[in-house]
Amino acid sequence: MPKYTGISPLVARRLPRYYRHLTELIDMGIKRISSHEFSKVTGFTASQIRQDLNCFGGFGQQGYGYNVSSLRDEIGHILAVDKELPAIMIGAGNLGHAIINHISFEQCGFKLAGIFETNPAVVGQNINGLMVRDCSEMKDFCKEYKPAAAVLCIPPAFVPDIAAALVEHGVKSFWNFSQYDLSHLYPDRIVVEDVHLRDSLMTLSYRANALTAD
Amino acid sequence: MPKYTGISPLVARRLPRYYRHLTELIDMGIKRISSHEFSKVTGFTASQIRQDLNCFGGFGQQGYGYNVSSLRDEIGHILAVDKELPAIMIGAGNLGHAIINHISFEQCGFKLAGIFETNPAVVGQNINGLMVRDCSEMKDFCKEYKPAAAVLCIPPAFVPDIAAALVEHGVKSFWNFSQYDLSHLYPDRIVVEDVHLRDSLMTLSYRANALTAD
Repeated sequence: MPKYTGISPLVARRLPRYYRHLTELIDMGIKRISSHEFSKVTGFTASQIRQDLNCFGGFGQQGYGYNVSSLRDEIGHILAVDKELPAIMIGAGNLGHAIINHISFEQCGFKLAGIFETNPAVVGQNINGLMVRDCSEMKDFCKEYKPAAAVLCIPPAFVPDIAAALVEHGVKSFWNFSQYDLSHLYPDRIVVEDVHLRDSLMTLSYRANALTAD
Repeated sequence: MPKYTGISPLVARRLPRYYRHLTELIDMGIKRISSHEFSKVTGFTASQIRQDLNCFGGFGQQGYGYNVSSLRDEIGHILAVDKELPAIMIGAGNLGHAIINHISFEQCGFKLAGIFETNPAVVGQNINGLMVRDCSEMKDFCKEYKPAAAVLCIPPAFVPDIAAALVEHGVKSFWNFSQYDLSHLYPDRIVVEDVHLRDSLMTLSYRANALTAD
């Protein structure tokens, strides 16, 4: 159960960044930091930092600063990175493959429990210690392992059917690389974090060209 | 030079999504669409759509709707996806490799002109028709090809030095997968689109756990 129910979605979205910087500070051996110093590290203003972090307790003390390690632990706890919700990956093409190898799910609150693919050339392969299964096994797997989350690395056309099946099997959280706008298919019933890579690159194109025109 | 200087950053950030949905509509053979129908497709409200799209001209006509193809072309033009700004990739590990294979840079306004890596096992490899070069060649390459953008797929510790070198060589736009907060290193001088994969997964962890607790 979340300990801090009053965290706004915007603050929640900034917490991973605080967590990341606090981890870096710990690696550098820094034990305390003022909101002013933390501002230089994070790029957030000192007042925003105080506002963000004060909503979950009195870590910052006037003239003392934040206890880096306690604050990191608490934010990690709020983000539930100390849990391991079971997750599955749908699609083990180039991108799915790279994500599995690049991201430590365990450090982000999840445990990758299964990988599913339709391409027979990929089914049966071993990726990071997990054997890629055929998508036809997904239903039985979900019944047994009850994954909380699914990572979608499939083309957009496949998303509606796959998402419908996963939602039916009890999957409620989606990390969505598919470029399909999943979030409004099941409003209020699922949570979706989109990673729209092409959209991001097109936004860069817009901004890069605007910069050139200055 | 941008034709529409009055586009807010928030609207600019939504344009790739409009562009994507308009492309889908064209593929489905749809020639006109009302803001109401377009609302169902995009998940934006009809009034937001009208507000967003009216800021660059009268495509929507009362009782007629938007001309799908013209609107897509115009948005594509604003996003400059019809240009090919030269870009380079720094880091050709799992993730860099996957991005090159997964994303069509040409469809997003860029042309990938070079790939750089320090790992001698990867230097010399051919990825999608481009030979991976040693990072030591970066400077001369930049002088010759003047890349506008760099894709950073390197560990965060390498970012400050690499970014400094690239900025010196005239690179002003960054597609940043490094988990390093680059944007506040050179404020006002560069544009950065961050793809913070771990942050995104941690946000999903927070939201997935909040959902479970409901």
